Amino acid sequence: MKVNVAVVGFGTIGAGVVQLVHAHAELLAERTGVEVVVSRIVDLDLERDRGVPLDGVTLSKRFEDVLTDPAVDIVLELVGGTGVAREIVRRALEAGKHVVTANKALLHAHGEELFELARRVERGLRFEASVAGGIPIIRVIGEALASDRIDALYGIVNGTTNFILTRMIEERWSFADALAKAQELGFAEADPTLDVNGSDAAHKLTILARLAFNAAVDREKVFRRGIDGLALIDVLHAKQLGYVVKLLAVAKLRDGAVTLRVAPTLVPARCALANVRNEYNAVMLRSFALGDSLFVGKGAGALPTATAVVSDVCDLARAMARKQEFSGNAFAAFNSYPTASHLEAVSRFYLRLTTAEAPGILARVTKALGDSGISISAIDQQEAHDDGRVPIVVLTHAAKESALAAALAEIEAMPFVFEPPVVLYVEDLPM
Amino acid sequence: MKVNVAVVGFGTIGAGVVQLVHAHAELLAERTGVEVVVSRIVDLDLERDRGVPLDGVTLSKRFEDVLTDPAVDIVLELVGGTGVAREIVRRALEAGKHVVTANKALLHAHGEELFELARRVERGLRFEASVAGGIPIIRVIGEALASDRIDALYGIVNGTTNFILTRMIEERWSFADALAKAQELGFAEADPTLDVNGSDAAHKLTILARLAFNAAVDREKVFRRGIDGLALIDVLHAKQLGYVVKLLAVAKLRDGAVTLRVAPTLVPARCALANVRNEYNAVMLRSFALGDSLFVGKGAGALPTATAVVSDVCDLARAMARKQEFSGNAFAAFNSYPTASHLEAVSRFYLRLTTAEAPGILARVTKALGDSGISISAIDQQEAHDDGRVPIVVLTHAAKESALAAALAEIEAMPFVFEPPVVLYVEDLPM
Repeated sequence: MKVNVAVVGFGTIGAGVVQLVHAHAELLAERTGVEVVVSRIVDLDLERDRGVPLDGVTLSKRFEDVLTDPAVDIVLELVGGTGVAREIVRRALEAGKHVVTANKALLHAHGEELFELARRVERGLRFEASVAGGIPIIRVIGEALASDRIDALYGIVNGTTNFILTRMIEERWSFADALAKAQELGFAEADPTLDVNGSDAAHKLTILARLAFNAAVDREKVFRRGIDGLALIDVLHAKQLGYVVKLLAVAKLRDGAVTLRVAPTLVPARCALANVRNEYNAVMLRSFALGDSLFVGKGAGALPTATAVVSDVCDLARAMARKQEFSGNAFAAFNSYPTASHLEAVSRFYLRLTTAEAPGILARVTKALGDSGISISAIDQQEAHDDGRVPIVVLTHAAKESALAAALAEIEAMPFVFEPPVVLYVEDLPM
Repeated sequence: MKVNVAVVGFGTIGAGVVQLVHAHAELLAERTGVEVVVSRIVDLDLERDRGVPLDGVTLSKRFEDVLTDPAVDIVLELVGGTGVAREIVRRALEAGKHVVTANKALLHAHGEELFELARRVERGLRFEASVAGGIPIIRVIGEALASDRIDALYGIVNGTTNFILTRMIEERWSFADALAKAQELGFAEADPTLDVNGSDAAHKLTILARLAFNAAVDREKVFRRGIDGLALIDVLHAKQLGYVVKLLAVAKLRDGAVTLRVAPTLVPARCALANVRNEYNAVMLRSFALGDSLFVGKGAGALPTATAVVSDVCDLARAMARKQEFSGNAFAAFNSYPTASHLEAVSRFYLRLTTAEAPGILARVTKALGDSGISISAIDQQEAHDDGRVPIVVLTHAAKESALAAALAEIEAMPFVFEPPVVLYVEDLPM
């Protein structure tokens, strides 16, 4: 049996797919029992040499050519974005093709609609490459944990920010210097906004949470803070306290409601997530039966992402060979958990206040926290800077964020507090 | 649609399966589209209360009752061992049942035969729980990396020994003390022989290597050394050099041949595998396209293992609902890589020699190594003990083990060398 694949979008990932399918043709045939062939490539730029073999491939600038070619079995949407890409996936499914996409922004924005369409036309829609290309996390959640109940999910799902944070922690570089280095090495794009402000991680978090909890997620209620405002001084304070700052995407199911946040978060230096460095990604799952499990791999890059795309192609090819019916909806939301505000979630916190040097300040700050029911696990007040400003760093025990917000409003209004307090999250991961 | 499961062997894992299927009945139905029911349990001891609900379950002491019950779709072999278990799997497949097993010893010894039988009778044979129950590593290798070429595999696949080593490293306990503590906490069995001598890890290694390389593995050529002979002093020397000692199962594909070994191995303290502590297991894969990826979770325990078993049941149930054909052989060995002796593998080494205090000793030792082409990356000769014995610790650069063996034969024959040199492996894992 032969399965024909159309690559739509011939960028670095598309070229990686063509290279992998060509280099491992025999391996793929042995493992799937099917001959997988790239038969068509669609891109507006067909001139540039991508350095991959194109024998027997029909090149075209029109996506419609794929739809009208009955030999095409699987369409790979590798265009990106949420405009044309949405059209491509929709029309490919309607034309009876199976689809593989690597597009997290598309699934974040239009996942429900597209999966519902796939279910209706009984075609497969796969998306392993959309989150953490180098980690088969979509499969793990959908299959391996099918009999388990996931209670929480902690992810380092943006390689650019993890690279920047690693440089800040280990080399004491500022955010700006670390970003420049990441851009120089190709780990950050020319416009890194969506990475550093946490948007990219938030897209991935909603996809993962939807799968993990089998519930619709209210995108408006995802709390998002990036690392673009993160000061080196807080990274260094955290280090001294025995923690490492990561841009952590966190989803929790508690009391029947889901909370979601992406924010700079302190994790214990000894835990495995703290040791996920540079461009690597990681997802830790906390579940009823399995306990904690962790999955680490490269987050991006042409070959890791292409590998995830081709593994989806293999799955579809195998299923076609075995005459399997395509009737499921990976995005099925059979649980009706509401998405609660992040203020409802319980967490520990790192606070840094900048105050005047005057007697009784610490007492008033700690009283405000105590009045909101927040107890302190560590406190570090250092000597005043030359300008008379005193930094106070506080680690709290677990508390509802709404309680913290109340205390902070009170603290911020105190006359001797010079700047808005810096707030970071703290997660005590055991593994 | 309803799928009936027979649990054969009602120990802690069997009870865990019954509990999971009962507790998550709704979740399973939603995720698979199938109603999964435990309809039969077979065990010689039907009196003992396992504390799990048994409504609607037919209990029996005779395995034959399962074979002759046409309602049974899937048989779970949870008996263990390689005698009766082999019969159970064989006869269940011949009776047209799908089979799930958690039995690594069985697959190590008779995997080829059983998978060939499953292929012939077109039934599914699943075994996710056989290696690192809390990590879906069988799925990851078989599906997620289907389009990739795995070049090496590094595993901490025995929770008992990892617990013992963690105690030795962190509490400076001797092997004997750490083993006693592991037994007290239920992390080691009354007879821990197969765990501490590396046999259990070697069984798992042959299964993983077979899947990763799609090649038959010569079991006789697996080098195996446990931690039962490991001295605390070497664990502490390693720590001082910036390494952590793990019982590492290593499979490498190099120059078209596979090498396999289970042995105490130094890994850099900073790498992720070094931070896999206590009863956790981990597998790191090095592959062409994906680079390095790491999977961490609980290795044993009733619920993690039961989760892996039930995930296999779900897969089979889903495949039945989709009318999929069962024609593959997970153990298919389409590559004909030979298994080479571990002496052919290239590795770095840790050596500890005990010598007399006399001039020129270090020169002669280093010359012997140099004559075999082994260069030294670090050396630590400490002051003589009270008895006049001098410990010399050497870390080498990468070399073929056969070259090391030649040098060691020469060194051991030197008159001032008191004891056989201690040899541990060193693996520089980047992640």
